[in-house]
Amino acid sequence: MNSEVRRILEAVRSGGLDVDDALLKLKEKPFEDIGYAKVDLHRKVRQGAAEVIYGAGKTAEQITGIVTAMKNGGQDTILITRLSPEAAAQVGQTHALDYHPDARAGVVGELPPADGLGTIVIATGGTSDIPIAEEAALTAQILGNHVTRLYDVGVAGLHRTLAHLDEIMTASVIVAIAGMEGALASVIGGLADCPVIAVPTSVGYGASFQGLSALLSMLNSCASGVSVVNIDNGFGAGYLASMINHMEGKR
Amino acid sequence: MNSEVRRILEAVRSGGLDVDDALLKLKEKPFEDIGYAKVDLHRKVRQGAAEVIYGAGKTAEQITGIVTAMKNGGQDTILITRLSPEAAAQVGQTHALDYHPDARAGVVGELPPADGLGTIVIATGGTSDIPIAEEAALTAQILGNHVTRLYDVGVAGLHRTLAHLDEIMTASVIVAIAGMEGALASVIGGLADCPVIAVPTSVGYGASFQGLSALLSMLNSCASGVSVVNIDNGFGAGYLASMINHMEGKR
Amino acid sequence: MNSEVRRILEAVRSGGLDVDDALLKLKEKPFEDIGYAKVDLHRKVRQGAAEVIYGAGKTAEQITGIVTAMKNGGQDTILITRLSPEAAAQVGQTHALDYHPDARAGVVGELPPADGLGTIVIATGGTSDIPIAEEAALTAQILGNHVTRLYDVGVAGLHRTLAHLDEIMTASVIVAIAGMEGALASVIGGLADCPVIAVPTSVGYGASFQGLSALLSMLNSCASGVSVVNIDNGFGAGYLASMINHMEGKR
Amino acid sequence: MNSEVRRILEAVRSGGLDVDDALLKLKEKPFEDIGYAKVDLHRKVRQGAAEVIYGAGKTAEQITGIVTAMKNGGQDTILITRLSPEAAAQVGQTHALDYHPDARAGVVGELPPADGLGTIVIATGGTSDIPIAEEAALTAQILGNHVTRLYDVGVAGLHRTLAHLDEIMTASVIVAIAGMEGALASVIGGLADCPVIAVPTSVGYGASFQGLSALLSMLNSCASGVSVVNIDNGFGAGYLASMINHMEGKR
Amino acid sequence: MNSEVRRILEAVRSGGLDVDDALLKLKEKPFEDIGYAKVDLHRKVRQGAAEVIYGAGKTAEQITGIVTAMKNGGQDTILITRLSPEAAAQVGQTHALDYHPDARAGVVGELPPADGLGTIVIATGGTSDIPIAEEAALTAQILGNHVTRLYDVGVAGLHRTLAHLDEIMTASVIVAIAGMEGALASVIGGLADCPVIAVPTSVGYGASFQGLSALLSMLNSCASGVSVVNIDNGFGAGYLASMINHMEGKR
Amino acid sequence: MNSEVRRILEAVRSGGLDVDDALLKLKEKPFEDIGYAKVDLHRKVRQGAAEVIYGAGKTAEQITGIVTAMKNGGQDTILITRLSPEAAAQVGQTHALDYHPDARAGVVGELPPADGLGTIVIATGGTSDIPIAEEAALTAQILGNHVTRLYDVGVAGLHRTLAHLDEIMTASVIVAIAGMEGALASVIGGLADCPVIAVPTSVGYGASFQGLSALLSMLNSCASGVSVVNIDNGFGAGYLASMINHMEGKR
Amino acid sequence: MNSEVRRILEAVRSGGLDVDDALLKLKEKPFEDIGYAKVDLHRKVRQGAAEVIYGAGKTAEQITGIVTAMKNGGQDTILITRLSPEAAAQVGQTHALDYHPDARAGVVGELPPADGLGTIVIATGGTSDIPIAEEAALTAQILGNHVTRLYDVGVAGLHRTLAHLDEIMTASVIVAIAGMEGALASVIGGLADCPVIAVPTSVGYGASFQGLSALLSMLNSCASGVSVVNIDNGFGAGYLASMINHMEGKR
Amino acid sequence: MNSEVRRILEAVRSGGLDVDDALLKLKEKPFEDIGYAKVDLHRKVRQGAAEVIYGAGKTAEQITGIVTAMKNGGQDTILITRLSPEAAAQVGQTHALDYHPDARAGVVGELPPADGLGTIVIATGGTSDIPIAEEAALTAQILGNHVTRLYDVGVAGLHRTLAHLDEIMTASVIVAIAGMEGALASVIGGLADCPVIAVPTSVGYGASFQGLSALLSMLNSCASGVSVVNIDNGFGAGYLASMINHMEGKR
Repeated sequence: MNSEVRRILEAVRSGGLDVDDALLKLKEKPFEDIGYAKVDLHRKVRQGAAEVIYGAGKTAEQITGIVTAMKNGGQDTILITRLSPEAAAQVGQTHALDYHPDARAGVVGELPPADGLGTIVIATGGTSDIPIAEEAALTAQILGNHVTRLYDVGVAGLHRTLAHLDEIMTASVIVAIAGMEGALASVIGGLADCPVIAVPTSVGYGASFQGLSALLSMLNSCASGVSVVNIDNGFGAGYLASMINHMEGKR
Repeated sequence: MNSEVRRILEAVRSGGLDVDDALLKLKEKPFEDIGYAKVDLHRKVRQGAAEVIYGAGKTAEQITGIVTAMKNGGQDTILITRLSPEAAAQVGQTHALDYHPDARAGVVGELPPADGLGTIVIATGGTSDIPIAEEAALTAQILGNHVTRLYDVGVAGLHRTLAHLDEIMTASVIVAIAGMEGALASVIGGLADCPVIAVPTSVGYGASFQGLSALLSMLNSCASGVSVVNIDNGFGAGYLASMINHMEGKR
Repeated sequence: MNSEVRRILEAVRSGGLDVDDALLKLKEKPFEDIGYAKVDLHRKVRQGAAEVIYGAGKTAEQITGIVTAMKNGGQDTILITRLSPEAAAQVGQTHALDYHPDARAGVVGELPPADGLGTIVIATGGTSDIPIAEEAALTAQILGNHVTRLYDVGVAGLHRTLAHLDEIMTASVIVAIAGMEGALASVIGGLADCPVIAVPTSVGYGASFQGLSALLSMLNSCASGVSVVNIDNGFGAGYLASMINHMEGKR
Repeated sequence: MNSEVRRILEAVRSGGLDVDDALLKLKEKPFEDIGYAKVDLHRKVRQGAAEVIYGAGKTAEQITGIVTAMKNGGQDTILITRLSPEAAAQVGQTHALDYHPDARAGVVGELPPADGLGTIVIATGGTSDIPIAEEAALTAQILGNHVTRLYDVGVAGLHRTLAHLDEIMTASVIVAIAGMEGALASVIGGLADCPVIAVPTSVGYGASFQGLSALLSMLNSCASGVSVVNIDNGFGAGYLASMINHMEGKR
Repeated sequence: MNSEVRRILEAVRSGGLDVDDALLKLKEKPFEDIGYAKVDLHRKVRQGAAEVIYGAGKTAEQITGIVTAMKNGGQDTILITRLSPEAAAQVGQTHALDYHPDARAGVVGELPPADGLGTIVIATGGTSDIPIAEEAALTAQILGNHVTRLYDVGVAGLHRTLAHLDEIMTASVIVAIAGMEGALASVIGGLADCPVIAVPTSVGYGASFQGLSALLSMLNSCASGVSVVNIDNGFGAGYLASMINHMEGKR
Repeated sequence: MNSEVRRILEAVRSGGLDVDDALLKLKEKPFEDIGYAKVDLHRKVRQGAAEVIYGAGKTAEQITGIVTAMKNGGQDTILITRLSPEAAAQVGQTHALDYHPDARAGVVGELPPADGLGTIVIATGGTSDIPIAEEAALTAQILGNHVTRLYDVGVAGLHRTLAHLDEIMTASVIVAIAGMEGALASVIGGLADCPVIAVPTSVGYGASFQGLSALLSMLNSCASGVSVVNIDNGFGAGYLASMINHMEGKR
Repeated sequence: MNSEVRRILEAVRSGGLDVDDALLKLKEKPFEDIGYAKVDLHRKVRQGAAEVIYGAGKTAEQITGIVTAMKNGGQDTILITRLSPEAAAQVGQTHALDYHPDARAGVVGELPPADGLGTIVIATGGTSDIPIAEEAALTAQILGNHVTRLYDVGVAGLHRTLAHLDEIMTASVIVAIAGMEGALASVIGGLADCPVIAVPTSVGYGASFQGLSALLSMLNSCASGVSVVNIDNGFGAGYLASMINHMEGKR
Repeated sequence: MNSEVRRILEAVRSGGLDVDDALLKLKEKPFEDIGYAKVDLHRKVRQGAAEVIYGAGKTAEQITGIVTAMKNGGQDTILITRLSPEAAAQVGQTHALDYHPDARAGVVGELPPADGLGTIVIATGGTSDIPIAEEAALTAQILGNHVTRLYDVGVAGLHRTLAHLDEIMTASVIVAIAGMEGALASVIGGLADCPVIAVPTSVGYGASFQGLSALLSMLNSCASGVSVVNIDNGFGAGYLASMINHMEGKR
């Protein structure tokens, strides 16, 4: 944002821009307004690989419109999360869409090649956590990461967790997804030497209180290097994992 | 209680007891009332080994009085939990008292020999959980159990837990004590083949919410054979562990 | 797990196993992977009597597949919990299945003879708690226990509870199941001399807050020997009760 | 309030009062304002027997002043709740005060004779609940009731509760006071045929959450005739019990 | 219960009953067991006027069966709460049933004449609280009380409340029913001189949290004489109001 | 209300009204009772512009009846909030109704001209908050305010918020509507010099806990001039904003 | 902020400012940094009358320093909230300070004349709420408002509230402060025709849960025109009340 | 851990280690046990730069002993968090200790040179958050990172936040620390292109509920790339930030 301000100031000084126009430009919206959503066309530059649409609460028509605007804006690969099969079918009539029912997500365009520092491991405590895990995995893949899936490795059967010690200890980033007691994050956090992003899930019953139990458990993890995102926020975990897996020198 | 009713009824039939006296007896309190507390003199018979006084909220004078009443009632070994060093010093002036500062508990009389089915393992996630663990351990010992202490074996350093696999897998009952994320109960529950009594502790800070996080985590344990007692209830866990470790045929 | 490590190490020493294979074996999964679930084939040995499938969130096809894998693995008796009548009908087309609608559970194979230390009493506060109670009862039966059901003996009609004093006082283990105020666990805990496993249920309305009220009440029980499992966790209570009812010397 | 309006209106019609004065009178405060508190001088008429000062947060000087104003207003008997021993000593220098340390309350003047319908039973689950019970008992006594105290009759030792079946079944109103699991209200509510006022207390630790557990348990009581007041609100329970114990025909 | 014990004891002494039979009798259940519910046939005697069936979670067949058993036991008037119109229609095929859709309740038999001390006022804050209010009103009526309904008199339009000052100030007992902020109980409690039973309701949205807001507000009422029952518990309030309205000397 | 009392009193003094009638009048309800709702006919005077019906929980017939009564009472413009499309269609058969599906609200009559002090800005964090925003906007418009809508200006894309700095800094009152983290209220509160009414919404998932997260966040806003209404209470915010935007001298 | 941008742009165009300096200026901090706090010297212009220091967590030395900086910056009147008597004494050694112990606040300089639209009424439910009320009152006064205090007018003694109907109905803005059940806001909100700012307080005990009960109650107020600030936030309420009381045309 | 297993297995095969010794070694604890704490001597290797002692709940003697053990183990730089000034003084008698009172932490040895990918920005919303921020900053520094502190840049004064746009947009990792509404994390998350670690703090009052409000707000952040650690967990945030700032290729 800083360099834009400089450019505008220089244009004012050089006389190429008068004050009122500059004032306007400084407030100008760097996104196309299509009525029901502000499509941010600068985001590609910032993140580089692809663009993401949060599908929940949007009609198929709205999603189709946003995809069109994005493609017109030069975006090749687009991920649509929280997309129902019905909406996917409708969007698919306008745009070539690859629908992933497990992740409840659709992809427009090609998955980019993996160009991160290493592998992102996505681990779940049980099989009910898989939809969230697939959302995280797809997000990471579409942002250019190699992903290894370790599903149903919950700590109540510790041999299942330990059977994957190699993957855990060589990962670049780990996304640990679990409902109920959420202990997976602590155990993996204690085994791994890399950042662990914990995702509590709302699966379970009784005193799991829709993910509250797992959330609190993960926040209290005694293992260093563990941080937590919102309950069921597979996308957020995948996005952050990709960001960490693409770290580079900033000096 | 049933056999008492029978005895009274038989005395009525035989004429040894008239109706009003029987009515009275049926309501009679089987405990000595010493004003500030009802000293239950039947309890020894029921549990066998020893008697326990919950010291919290009682003055040193009251505790001394209860001990005197119990000893007069024939009780040799008495455990006093939640006993401050100051109160212990005062009680110690009247009764020979062995004070355990770690457990904040005092013992009057000898520890009985261990006569349970096997060993009770008391495990803690961290060093801050030790006071609760010592309360559990002392309770189990005074009720006639062999106890093995495994302290600071939290799952965030899983090699610490696994280093004690032998003790965990050969235990008769395990008491798993942890604050913060409370994952110890699940991991031990998954490794062990015996009942695991989970005790959440109020140690920790922030989102541990005085033990709530560990409590919920333990209740949600996916490992079978795990049950939970109140936050910081070391006594309750030790008592139940002893009960299970003294199971015998009831057919 | 320890003895397996020893066997592998001895095979290495004797030359019957090279290092890489040993390394592999140490991580090898002792369960068959059928895609959607890891079927643990060692569990029978550990618990002895039968195997349990948690049916919630699994399709009838998946359950059928797991049952097939288990039977191929030598398992004769299988309990499927949280099984809808519809899914039961589907599974029943492939495997002989005895469906218990009250417990929402199905049984493949014969119930084993009861070989525990004594009788497990399953008590409920009201009639709405019966589904959870039946899940607990069936679990205990399939694991080889004699079960006595005491339903609708809530303490608000104390004569109902007291009418069963005999069963309560001679039980080996008691499972006390109640929603709303959850007082049943305390009253039974005060009457009985055996371990009491309390199960809060989510029945009720208003300030029962889906079982939270009963859960807190049971955790705070002043009766010794009471521990608590998750809200509505009939299976967990039945499993733990069986474990306690099969205690034997481990010295 | 209605009859006052009538009196004022009649005075207006008769010319004895002009409109502006009437308007004023209709708003006039029926209490003396002594700066830090509005002393309600009508309250005696309404309740009859005595007046109560809530001592918490008031200085000894303020309490002394309120007592003086009340006595000047014709009030003979005054109860001061939540009164520290120190404040009591100070108030006692001006007014003859009978201090009850258990109840943390003081009485100015004589206790009135009991003139209620029957006996109010005040029962507690444990000894730690006694301060709240004494506040309730003293409140009931100063409002003209005969009170029977049943302390330490918690349901975890059910024989203690049942030993007092006579008092419970012949009471006019029962105040059931308990912390921790709060089951006393349900058990007594199931035994008694009279209104039961449940008072949760903040004694306990861990998952009692400062009385929340007992509060929820009591609200969920399955026994009919039970209602609940605020945690630790002994005064409120005693006051309501007296009100019920003085019910009379209003037809 | 006491007098039964005496009768049994006297029969034993007189030889009319041997010990084993007496023992049995002492445990005998004073209710008919019809499989799915224990029909308490003594309750009529205790409360006098009528019997109540809690319809929630019972099938129409079960309700019909219970009504039949009660009528066979001599009960003329029966209230069935939480009864859906569909179940009412089915029960109505066997028993003459007067269905009250507002209260979601049905009545078998005649309403008894009002024989209480005075009038029970049932007041609600809004129109959405009416179903709970009607349940309370019908309960009170079937137990022999005269009822005055004051609906939609919430304090946010205080003139509506004050318009009914007469009814409020002359009531024998008041049931104050409100959701959202629950202030009605405090305002009425401050105006009335009789016991006020507060019923929080789950109507509302947002921070009403299904009645929690009203519940807490009512528990904190600064007005003396107010007590609280469970959220939406119209029956409990009506039952307790009737009990208070039928108080009589017990000396 | 005060001037009414004066009028009545003067009529009494002048003999134009006798005491009993005056007494009655003082209690007389200033609203028409049409059975299912008390239609307040004085409210127009107080607020001036229009009348509002809260449609939730009312049948189309009831709403139609209330509108009829209001129009008979001289009300020209009426807003009906929380009105389903189906109910709107039914009401529309009797009264000319302009339905706003976004706001789930209907308007009978003309919107009045804007006569407030300035512009009310309605800002939302996301697109899912729009229904609540439209309810607020329509409420403000029908009460005579000029409204500017700033939707989807959430702080996670701060340039979107800042692009509207002009509108924010020149507003008369701002309604800031957001779910999830609710940070919009703080940021706008820090930028604006006018009262900010924060409305938390229940949109979101996981740890948003149906609006609780946004509610707490808004209550804790460090920006001065921010206050909060109930979750999803668009009407309340619009009404209060109008009240503030119509402030005038009262000296 | 907008006009500053314009000024800077014009200086750039005119050559009076080069680009780098402009860039710097656009980021320049419009406040003096004195190390431990950023003293905002522009705030006076924005709000006009006076400046406020939040004293909590600041040492007397820090407060003295901030006051000095403010006075150097031309500020005459300064309010210091949450100021202990000890800190006040220390600050008073350097600056003439008028300390208000009730409000726990100090004033440097003169109170400005009242120049608002009307009177701000500050009402409290009880006497324990007075410290919060005084903080609100002093804040309003220092910002140029006429304030009327109505203390101890809680709705449990409704005649106390109604005695002040005149003040309530003629207020410009009302601040309603109450703990416990918080009903004052609803009752006043229903009586008044002006904005009501509700302040829950943390006074009370038991189920008041440190102000949570009052907070929820106030958020659920059915009276229109009521909004809520944080628990115990007297300053925030006084500030917002002043803002509303100084509304003027912005067209 | 994997490579250790391989080494041991190879030693077994080569005959350099017999089976029992290997079995022992596999369980051997890689840490020195000094009674009150297990000092992990392998940790230096894993994280490289320094070792950290969590000082809370440890006596000065214990801390001194752990430092001694660590130094004997070859550790040069040691950070002790949550260290009181008193304990620091005591530890300082044995070891050269640099105490940082703001952070409540002490450092033994030299800070290592910064060798991370870029700069870690530590930002706080207010001045009360500084202790947590200093703990994070010191942790990051001792682990070899360059740290920029941006304190008191809360979003309620957005110009303060924006004044540091340069630092925010060029950071490698940002730690955003805030209590109360916690909006800082969302605003910074929306501005920055790097991972943001949010730390809720327990500062504040009222509805901040000891950090719960900030915690929920941060978990619900709509900005991508934000994750959350426990309330007040400055150490955890600094540790994770360092881990991310030292990411390198793992392919």
